[in-house]
Amino acid sequence: MRRPRKEYAVRAVVFEQFQTFPSLTEIDRPVPGPGEALLKIAGAGACHSDVAVYREFTADGPASIPPPFVLGHENAGWIEELGPGVSGFEKGEAHLVYGPIGCGHCKACSRGQDTYCENVASMPYLAVGLGRDGGMAEYMTVPVRNLVPLGDADPVDAAPLADAALTPYHAIKLSLPQLGGGGRYALVVGLGGLGQIAVQILTALTGATVIATDVKEDAMERAAAHGAVTVPGGPDQVARIRELTGGRGVDAAFDFVGASGTIAAAQGSMAQRSRLTVVGIANGTAQWSFFTNPYECELTNTYWGTIEDLHEVVAMYRAGQIRPDVQRFGMDRALEAYELLESGGLTGRAVVMPNA
Amino acid sequence: MRRPRKEYAVRAVVFEQFQTFPSLTEIDRPVPGPGEALLKIAGAGACHSDVAVYREFTADGPASIPPPFVLGHENAGWIEELGPGVSGFEKGEAHLVYGPIGCGHCKACSRGQDTYCENVASMPYLAVGLGRDGGMAEYMTVPVRNLVPLGDADPVDAAPLADAALTPYHAIKLSLPQLGGGGRYALVVGLGGLGQIAVQILTALTGATVIATDVKEDAMERAAAHGAVTVPGGPDQVARIRELTGGRGVDAAFDFVGASGTIAAAQGSMAQRSRLTVVGIANGTAQWSFFTNPYECELTNTYWGTIEDLHEVVAMYRAGQIRPDVQRFGMDRALEAYELLESGGLTGRAVVMPNA
Amino acid sequence: MRRPRKEYAVRAVVFEQFQTFPSLTEIDRPVPGPGEALLKIAGAGACHSDVAVYREFTADGPASIPPPFVLGHENAGWIEELGPGVSGFEKGEAHLVYGPIGCGHCKACSRGQDTYCENVASMPYLAVGLGRDGGMAEYMTVPVRNLVPLGDADPVDAAPLADAALTPYHAIKLSLPQLGGGGRYALVVGLGGLGQIAVQILTALTGATVIATDVKEDAMERAAAHGAVTVPGGPDQVARIRELTGGRGVDAAFDFVGASGTIAAAQGSMAQRSRLTVVGIANGTAQWSFFTNPYECELTNTYWGTIEDLHEVVAMYRAGQIRPDVQRFGMDRALEAYELLESGGLTGRAVVMPNA
Amino acid sequence: MRRPRKEYAVRAVVFEQFQTFPSLTEIDRPVPGPGEALLKIAGAGACHSDVAVYREFTADGPASIPPPFVLGHENAGWIEELGPGVSGFEKGEAHLVYGPIGCGHCKACSRGQDTYCENVASMPYLAVGLGRDGGMAEYMTVPVRNLVPLGDADPVDAAPLADAALTPYHAIKLSLPQLGGGGRYALVVGLGGLGQIAVQILTALTGATVIATDVKEDAMERAAAHGAVTVPGGPDQVARIRELTGGRGVDAAFDFVGASGTIAAAQGSMAQRSRLTVVGIANGTAQWSFFTNPYECELTNTYWGTIEDLHEVVAMYRAGQIRPDVQRFGMDRALEAYELLESGGLTGRAVVMPNA
Repeated sequence: MRRPRKEYAVRAVVFEQFQTFPSLTEIDRPVPGPGEALLKIAGAGACHSDVAVYREFTADGPASIPPPFVLGHENAGWIEELGPGVSGFEKGEAHLVYGPIGCGHCKACSRGQDTYCENVASMPYLAVGLGRDGGMAEYMTVPVRNLVPLGDADPVDAAPLADAALTPYHAIKLSLPQLGGGGRYALVVGLGGLGQIAVQILTALTGATVIATDVKEDAMERAAAHGAVTVPGGPDQVARIRELTGGRGVDAAFDFVGASGTIAAAQGSMAQRSRLTVVGIANGTAQWSFFTNPYECELTNTYWGTIEDLHEVVAMYRAGQIRPDVQRFGMDRALEAYELLESGGLTGRAVVMPNA
Repeated sequence: MRRPRKEYAVRAVVFEQFQTFPSLTEIDRPVPGPGEALLKIAGAGACHSDVAVYREFTADGPASIPPPFVLGHENAGWIEELGPGVSGFEKGEAHLVYGPIGCGHCKACSRGQDTYCENVASMPYLAVGLGRDGGMAEYMTVPVRNLVPLGDADPVDAAPLADAALTPYHAIKLSLPQLGGGGRYALVVGLGGLGQIAVQILTALTGATVIATDVKEDAMERAAAHGAVTVPGGPDQVARIRELTGGRGVDAAFDFVGASGTIAAAQGSMAQRSRLTVVGIANGTAQWSFFTNPYECELTNTYWGTIEDLHEVVAMYRAGQIRPDVQRFGMDRALEAYELLESGGLTGRAVVMPNA
Repeated sequence: MRRPRKEYAVRAVVFEQFQTFPSLTEIDRPVPGPGEALLKIAGAGACHSDVAVYREFTADGPASIPPPFVLGHENAGWIEELGPGVSGFEKGEAHLVYGPIGCGHCKACSRGQDTYCENVASMPYLAVGLGRDGGMAEYMTVPVRNLVPLGDADPVDAAPLADAALTPYHAIKLSLPQLGGGGRYALVVGLGGLGQIAVQILTALTGATVIATDVKEDAMERAAAHGAVTVPGGPDQVARIRELTGGRGVDAAFDFVGASGTIAAAQGSMAQRSRLTVVGIANGTAQWSFFTNPYECELTNTYWGTIEDLHEVVAMYRAGQIRPDVQRFGMDRALEAYELLESGGLTGRAVVMPNA
Repeated sequence: MRRPRKEYAVRAVVFEQFQTFPSLTEIDRPVPGPGEALLKIAGAGACHSDVAVYREFTADGPASIPPPFVLGHENAGWIEELGPGVSGFEKGEAHLVYGPIGCGHCKACSRGQDTYCENVASMPYLAVGLGRDGGMAEYMTVPVRNLVPLGDADPVDAAPLADAALTPYHAIKLSLPQLGGGGRYALVVGLGGLGQIAVQILTALTGATVIATDVKEDAMERAAAHGAVTVPGGPDQVARIRELTGGRGVDAAFDFVGASGTIAAAQGSMAQRSRLTVVGIANGTAQWSFFTNPYECELTNTYWGTIEDLHEVVAMYRAGQIRPDVQRFGMDRALEAYELLESGGLTGRAVVMPNA
């Protein structure tokens, strides 16, 4: 156990040490600091990047985040208590949590893009659940500027939106100039949690024909049910995508895998004046040259999103435009959720409900 | 009759003189000049602005377009013959016609926006059907750069797209920055031909909630069938629109009437950082002040669209995203189409088929 | 005197009651709350809007800000003390202060645009110096997210940037799409403090020919010294502006007066596809109609700016691209600064130095 | 000689066959076709890409342009004669020529971007001087939509603008969103003809600090004279560029070389949310990965520009914002211009004056 047990102990999923599976244990109930709220957690999503954190990170890694800390960077819950200097919130209100926490006063943080905080090197954590105690616990503290009101929408299903919807939303929003108009095509590569929501966002926000590709048949079926035209991975993939676009290529592509092969497939599918955003972190390498890049096609990447984006994601969720595919787990089964995530045994996003 | 009858006479609806109802008469079959094609007309839309032209224009009017000329600025047809210096077209191909014709070599024309031709003062006409012979005839000539290929799509239903879809499309495209994202609202004021297609375009290209308003019940029903939330005109109109947006106002509004009252209603419905485009030409006046304009709301107007826009409109039509509501008339009933247009007896856009 | 004198009394310019000239008096030295810093003030600018506040506002005014409070919404100073929960600042560092203070957690505040705070109705003040104690005092408290580091740049001359540069900067930044390219024209109407800095910003950030207009000869001379072409107000004003643009009109205009006459002059000077931003609050009314508005000219307004904008304003100041024209006053002469402001006796922006 | 000599023979620099130095010979005086003008050439620029054409291209090359044809894709001259269907031009008017010639009726050509003509595969040439007879002759024909009026500006010095200014202008214009604001940095890699004009355009149109890099000392001196901060190529290059930006990197970079090394140097110099445009055609390859690309940095390329861009380039030239560095050659010395270009013996852009 991480800390001596006290009167107000709460259960939490704690990443205790590098390259070690997390523990379900007890910690002190946290106390909200200045500008913070204490949130009673309704749901906390289990994300593949958590697995990368506890399986792969090491003390001398490039962006190491030293344990111990509570996992969970996709969180929603109810206001329980307010720290010093906070007003404008009522106990019991449901909020979704913007995970990244930067210095709060640099230029990037000033526009609500803590992901690109200019003082990141001096910050003791990156986000809730990434260096700072996250939401896989009965309670969590968070700066109130990171809260996005959910109104009467279900906070359990909402939890994954904080990453699995925010990340594709941000990438898509930056591609709207390419997708804004008649006759456009969008390509989604990789139909896991983020890719499925990307299909929903693209279908809702643009008039583009959405082409979705994966190697898993059931993932493609789900994408097709949300309105995508599907193309299986394989040797004919690029030719079939290009054929669907009348030879022209797609106006925007989103690679949620990020392997060398998936990036290359996307590169081969692009139109002139398009945008290819690599979101997946499989650490692939792209070969790029003037003569193979369709003119004015932009190759770029993004990381997570902004607070304002998350307000807009919640608006889409409340309007029924984003419908996360969730598997709920009680706190007793929290570790099982991670086991299933690792073994590929989940069909939707696992959300742990610490207070259910 | 306008010109002495010749061997190759063709029937045409000719605006013969100011403030006079047009005639169904015969003209010489036109001959395509350098850079032009001769189009066999499949369909020509009858537009309210035609009525303004033949009922209201006078010789000393500010933008007078002296008769006689053949009416029809919404045209589609098949390639019949090519003028000198033209290649890349096949006889029988179906094309939609971009109506405006500028000098072709100024900065505005160079980007395909002949509507804003810098040499308009020295041009003998504004567009086909507006000073130059239009498409209410068996044949029409047009510069080939004004042709947008229709592929295998029906050219009769397509004809109205050249104005009734292009005009709202252009206005909407310029408002996509305001409408790009979750939680947005769009307002369409006036649900005639352009307003109905505006609802379809907004529904297809954005994720916005589309609010549509008119005084006619059946027009609102058609808009609702295309996905709009409707609000009837009247004293509660603005309050109800604002209520639908949670008090915030709409992010983009399009006024297809342009009367003082409709502009004022739209102004009262705007959110901060929004855009209000007046498209209708009812010659209303808006009162504007710093203290009543929501911050950064833009008040603007537009006129018709660009050639590139029309390519994108055709892509939407071919994808089934725009479905014009058309009433077809044979050439014998061409004048009846205008009579019904004037008397309010049409339910859809009248399209005359000179060769049916 | 506003409050009983205590051990740590500091001198301050206090707006004591509606429609009353402010007093130079003593208040308690303020204590920084959670998330705040105590700033030792280097300079505080006196702004025309202060005069409006103490001369014109009443208890039942539409946006009333009840006295008493310390004036000064253009402030710079040195970190003196940090409130609870604050880190990342060193005592003695110079910072410029972003004045507006919203709720801090709505969508608008999340992007650093507190001016458009969605919870403004429940906020007890609008900004430092506007409802909350401002910088016309030896010390002021402010949330640290409102601080923009000045590095080694002079904080006294910097003070006016917080409004007199931020306001035109924000308006200009939103007009950069219209001004981005060769052959563009910008118009600045009203060459007081904001107008002069607008000329500098436009000259630095765009390649546009900057046309500046006023009725005061010396103001025009200063604008000309910063690179503007000047046109005096009067009956020929619009014709001369249009002539300078080759008849086409200007691509962006900024009206820092906002009277009916200045807005009308700007409206008469616009090109197609341009943007006219009314910044001045003289409460004029514009008449707008479809047929007189050049196509796609946008009529809009703005209010102050964002925190991110202020970071960029400071970058321009540090690069020498903005050079405020300042008249310095010691604290003993603080009220004299306001008297001169009211009487028109200032040639530059008055900056009061409470600790000099 | 290419064609039998006739009455109206004119002198021309002809690319006669693949991998062969061009000849100064005689051709028939061309006759303007429908929609074309005959231009009496004032100046024709000699460009490095001409050398690539006659030295490196082969009959089975990927984008082969079969000889013979007259070289010269940077041309300016005076209207001499108009072809059928052309009006609105006067004999003797000076015009700059937009070189690319597409089909004229596809979507890309409709917006004046013939470089991306959708029917390029069926076009018999790419541009004047690239497959179609160019301006290294006493007379040349060109479609009038390709003409940009020069007014009273010198057409000889203007000639290189058609490529050496248009190409960087287009790349820079697409980067203005990244460069629009205070505190921005731009990087120009490669200070030949295009790079030097890029420095001038960036200095005129943006407030960015322009960093220029090359291995040639005199090229850097010229760039410095136009306002750039220079950094020599070599092992410290990237570190010095990053240092100049305060560690943050540049917001936009333009690589006019396009070798693997120059692209890598630019990649190493980029900030988050920036744009790197490769313009040079040295056929380098970039390695790109999610983890080395600064977040949201866009890697892209461009090719030449649009007709509208060229109108804006001429506006900058007429305003003195672009000052091409030209070496003039009479027609007798036309081949010498190419010899000097190949041997590195030119200090400015060589412009041949066929009628001087």
